[in-house]
Amino acid sequence: MKTKLSLLVFTSILTGQLCLAQENPQKPPADDWKPAPTNQKGKEYPQVNSEGRIKFRIVAPDAKTVGCTFRDSSEFSKGEDGAWYGYTRPLDEGFHYYAIKIDGAEVPDPNSLYFFGAMRWGSGVEIPAHDKDSYALKNVPHGQLREIYFHSNSTDTERRAFVYTPPGYDQNPNQRYPVLYLQHGWGENEYGWGVQGCAGLIMDNLIAAGKSRPFIIVMTYGMTNDTRMGGMRDFRIEPFETVLVKELIPYIDANFRTLADQPNRAMAGLSMGGMETKTITLKNLDTFSHIGLFSGGSISPDDISGLAGFREKNKLVFVSYGSREVSGNRSGGNRRGGDPKANVEALKEAGINSHYYVSPDTAHEWLSWRRSLREFAPLLFKN
Amino acid sequence: MKTKLSLLVFTSILTGQLCLAQENPQKPPADDWKPAPTNQKGKEYPQVNSEGRIKFRIVAPDAKTVGCTFRDSSEFSKGEDGAWYGYTRPLDEGFHYYAIKIDGAEVPDPNSLYFFGAMRWGSGVEIPAHDKDSYALKNVPHGQLREIYFHSNSTDTERRAFVYTPPGYDQNPNQRYPVLYLQHGWGENEYGWGVQGCAGLIMDNLIAAGKSRPFIIVMTYGMTNDTRMGGMRDFRIEPFETVLVKELIPYIDANFRTLADQPNRAMAGLSMGGMETKTITLKNLDTFSHIGLFSGGSISPDDISGLAGFREKNKLVFVSYGSREVSGNRSGGNRRGGDPKANVEALKEAGINSHYYVSPDTAHEWLSWRRSLREFAPLLFKN
Repeated sequence: MKTKLSLLVFTSILTGQLCLAQENPQKPPADDWKPAPTNQKGKEYPQVNSEGRIKFRIVAPDAKTVGCTFRDSSEFSKGEDGAWYGYTRPLDEGFHYYAIKIDGAEVPDPNSLYFFGAMRWGSGVEIPAHDKDSYALKNVPHGQLREIYFHSNSTDTERRAFVYTPPGYDQNPNQRYPVLYLQHGWGENEYGWGVQGCAGLIMDNLIAAGKSRPFIIVMTYGMTNDTRMGGMRDFRIEPFETVLVKELIPYIDANFRTLADQPNRAMAGLSMGGMETKTITLKNLDTFSHIGLFSGGSISPDDISGLAGFREKNKLVFVSYGSREVSGNRSGGNRRGGDPKANVEALKEAGINSHYYVSPDTAHEWLSWRRSLREFAPLLFKN
Repeated sequence: MKTKLSLLVFTSILTGQLCLAQENPQKPPADDWKPAPTNQKGKEYPQVNSEGRIKFRIVAPDAKTVGCTFRDSSEFSKGEDGAWYGYTRPLDEGFHYYAIKIDGAEVPDPNSLYFFGAMRWGSGVEIPAHDKDSYALKNVPHGQLREIYFHSNSTDTERRAFVYTPPGYDQNPNQRYPVLYLQHGWGENEYGWGVQGCAGLIMDNLIAAGKSRPFIIVMTYGMTNDTRMGGMRDFRIEPFETVLVKELIPYIDANFRTLADQPNRAMAGLSMGGMETKTITLKNLDTFSHIGLFSGGSISPDDISGLAGFREKNKLVFVSYGSREVSGNRSGGNRRGGDPKANVEALKEAGINSHYYVSPDTAHEWLSWRRSLREFAPLLFKN
């Protein structure tokens, strides 16, 4: 029952826009607009300014009203060229899902790239962050993001996963690698980490800088009993646990050059994926040694006090949040994340190697999770 | 100049809907609608019926007019649930790009998956074909579709390519494989063959049936000097030829277990990609041995009469079209493809190993090209 309540919390926050207004939306926006990096190639709009506002241009000659799903946005009005223009309040740096509204229809912006989140493929927009260099595409050795299909007996399906193999994987045929199983959030899918999560670029850059061991990352769909239409109430973790532990891990170990043992296997996830990670790793102490929860709850000393062998077998508990999710920050937010520092200190006292990270000035959103991976990866597989 | 004119032809046809009405659009549609396989998961619309019509459902409560970009479609009108409904004329089996129109705005259908074509990411819809089994996802050994980035000195960019590695590639570390370089059409990009082209699934199924040698396929963006906004008039093939021949091929040969010689290297492409294939392969006889042109022109005996060594070095010229593109078919079409049978017979007389294929009841569209790959692959690398 506790699990179900937590899931409902994740559900309600991932469908909304959590970023808070930082200043009076009536103030005229700074006139330094630039095309967003998430635009379709050659498209001038949406544009982003130095305040983190987004400005849209929508061609809808016969529409009565045009708008967007960001709350507190300006009214959209027709410009001299006959297209509709409107802009948002200042938003957090990083990535945001949105849609355009045309006479009551909620549709993707024809100018943006499309991403899977909030239970649909639709528009996303990126506000360049001050630390965007950590997930930029640079002239460094690149890993590969591989789309694979594996057969699942328990569901009688061919299931998709994405597998990041690090730079050098094909050049070093005798080397074996640790593996991180990395989960998306509620309403998202197996594309999330590789696309808007920038997982491959983050790892390429960390490895090039000597900050992380090269390892494999595996990303698959985490809602195996597929309750997307029924909502989270019907979600059960057991079908996914079976696919992950009994089917996908053996497939990966058989088809990739893994170090196929507990010390070299990690699991992490964001939001609902963090809940999955906690549930599955605590039930499978001999399978996973490193745990990462990104805006997805925490592991308390109580959670593990009755778990024989946790202290001996676990090598890392990592907990992270956006600053707007935790206590003691000055930028608002729901403080759902509690106090990760106190949590980690309690775990350390209980003898667990534990780390926390709070992403500055972000909420329950992808920039928090990209940064979480950037901070988590260097701590992995130090054995 | 001849090249430029051909390009303009490709431009004009790929932006339009070429499929012809097969019967009176006034006749009421057959009432056996089923959700299209290209819908977003859980979406009931668009639906397809046994006549190959597509029916849309669009929620746009305050709109005055709703429609779609398929010509000769029915008027859209509001149903009892307040949503707008409309349907198309019967269309060819296979894949079609489209958009929804709401009060003059042309936007993606929020219910469909999105594909890159006609110069934008937008909606596509699949009408199940009678031979869809050849590109179905089945419980057979699967290859991998790998997203890679390679550095290009000539353009000073990190460039994306997709690489299909066949089943068994990772399990057989001493085996080397031939390579097919496979190009998209005008207004499309490097995603086309791996997504709506179903290249990986086609190869998985051919290899499982013992009908094709396993080989690697490499797909990258073919409009290197990026004239998408300027149109085809400014297109020059040299920048792409440099990226492909001087940069991508060496990268692939260095990073994948290829058979890195002319007898084991093929190039093929659809539409504009066929033109690129013809131009580049005829200029690089020592690089490519097998040539495939899918709805993308042909190689005449005149083209090669002055080309020293073509007959000795070339192992295959394959030419294909949709039936509606060629002479002598009864289903209309522009007959731009001429007479591929006569073309191939003339090549054979000139001593060239040449094959042709005409896709039944299709036009300049992806079902023609999926079938072309299915027919082309078994002819490759017989050496």
